[in-house]
Amino acid sequence: MASQRITLDTFHYKWNKAHKPALTIRPGDDVTFEINEVTSGQIKEDSKVDAVKNLDISKLYPMAGPVYIEGARPGDTLTVEVLEVVTGDWGWSAIVNGLGLLEEFQEPYLYLWNLRKKHFAEFERGIRIPIRPFCGTMGVALPEEGSFEVLPPGKNGGNMDIRHLVAGSILELPVFVDGALFSTSDLHAAMGDGEVCVTAIECPGTARFKFGVKKDSKLSWPRYFSKGDEKAKKGYYTATGIGPDLMTVTKDSVRNMIAHLTKTYGLTKEDAYVLCSVAADVKIHEIVDQPNWVVGTTIPLDIFPN
Amino acid sequence: MASQRITLDTFHYKWNKAHKPALTIRPGDDVTFEINEVTSGQIKEDSKVDAVKNLDISKLYPMAGPVYIEGARPGDTLTVEVLEVVTGDWGWSAIVNGLGLLEEFQEPYLYLWNLRKKHFAEFERGIRIPIRPFCGTMGVALPEEGSFEVLPPGKNGGNMDIRHLVAGSILELPVFVDGALFSTSDLHAAMGDGEVCVTAIECPGTARFKFGVKKDSKLSWPRYFSKGDEKAKKGYYTATGIGPDLMTVTKDSVRNMIAHLTKTYGLTKEDAYVLCSVAADVKIHEIVDQPNWVVGTTIPLDIFPN
Repeated sequence: MASQRITLDTFHYKWNKAHKPALTIRPGDDVTFEINEVTSGQIKEDSKVDAVKNLDISKLYPMAGPVYIEGARPGDTLTVEVLEVVTGDWGWSAIVNGLGLLEEFQEPYLYLWNLRKKHFAEFERGIRIPIRPFCGTMGVALPEEGSFEVLPPGKNGGNMDIRHLVAGSILELPVFVDGALFSTSDLHAAMGDGEVCVTAIECPGTARFKFGVKKDSKLSWPRYFSKGDEKAKKGYYTATGIGPDLMTVTKDSVRNMIAHLTKTYGLTKEDAYVLCSVAADVKIHEIVDQPNWVVGTTIPLDIFPN
Repeated sequence: MASQRITLDTFHYKWNKAHKPALTIRPGDDVTFEINEVTSGQIKEDSKVDAVKNLDISKLYPMAGPVYIEGARPGDTLTVEVLEVVTGDWGWSAIVNGLGLLEEFQEPYLYLWNLRKKHFAEFERGIRIPIRPFCGTMGVALPEEGSFEVLPPGKNGGNMDIRHLVAGSILELPVFVDGALFSTSDLHAAMGDGEVCVTAIECPGTARFKFGVKKDSKLSWPRYFSKGDEKAKKGYYTATGIGPDLMTVTKDSVRNMIAHLTKTYGLTKEDAYVLCSVAADVKIHEIVDQPNWVVGTTIPLDIFPN
């Protein structure tokens, strides 16, 4: 079993099975990926909101990789065990015009985080977000010819933004090309299920993964194992949305949580939206009591002072 | 502070602000509700699947109540603190033709549970579901004239099927009529977020709630506080669905979990569907990476033997 490393200067944009491997490894090997933040350095620790307005989207998602795993063949399953994810010294969150769940947030907004206290990140008004780092993008090359955008996730995994893929988790991905060609990007210090404002706590850092191959598993969808989470000794507060359209209901539950956060904690609505994105989880409470579904946006009370 | 009781013979069907109160209490009082199972006794511990086929739907949701809370006025918020929920000796789950998330399950199916071991319910193949009882229906009278069905939840709460409303939780509901007129029904021994097959572990039992009134809160949507949950020391397994339509993606993630459960644990597909409904949680992992959303159906591994 060997340990190898992909350094910050080795990355690619877009999924493309023609990308030359940055590294070839054997099953059982582990790889440390040095990962730039998701804008390839366009946003810096001292950036102003103009950096969000002027983003060059062709430089989003610099992906460390690809890694060629020997013996992986189309139809196999690639297992990716998350051994460690380490955040850099700072991070950012933003509201980006035209993205995010809620269309009423049109003005670009940038929030910068200090991540030097490794266990939590301080927000406004004494709010502390526990650091639970993971990679938002973990995927393999697609079988089709050509280049494919990273933003939407797909059958190859990719930019799934699953906050549960922290250290101790194991992701399983279908393999479509020889060697699988695994890449990763979009390191997050913390995020809530939903990532509602379109960013987590985005940051640079490193991730160490151990790879394995299951033969002929014919997996058609990503799946994962994750450990339990203990981020809420004080309990949770949940805002619901109730109605017949699942997307509308989800938006309503987030809007109701934003209203609660602004009223209860004196946050601006932009900060409340960012807080939902980095700390609140979106759950489907029921999807069978026709014609109305219930979605809950849940925030752990441990993040608030007192 | 008084403790009062509503017995099994006091119930009503449908929401209707004209229902005469079964009990009048003061804020701070607690009430124990004796609750029949959701079919009003049409399904019994020795029932066969015919009982599901022949259900008289006019006798679904026998609601204990209504309780008139003195001082509650339209525009106030009713607080309902869940002090205790106790299950009876048995329960049932079913696949009911035309209901449930997945349209490919058309054949009625009935599963009966023994709940005499108070901490867990045994399923097939050594699987044990932790008992986490709550009331699927908790609501207040609507402001409109007339009778309204219980099945769909709404602005008055009602049949929200929120599995987190176990003992220790506090539900907040908007008040629409003098006295609020609170009722409850649909006691569940266990359920997963989503309740995907349309039933939880349905059972008779009792629930004890303490009521309070917040003046002039102008709450427009139900919200709740809940305690943390520790049901997964062994961790979780999650099946994803990924694509552009939120409902389709949710169905896909449940289908993928059913495929996993049948293959890994040798369950029939009907039992796997029921297991998802009573033990797996449906979460929105991301809803911003346009145009594809990721939904995960997550099952705690503690329920499986070994």
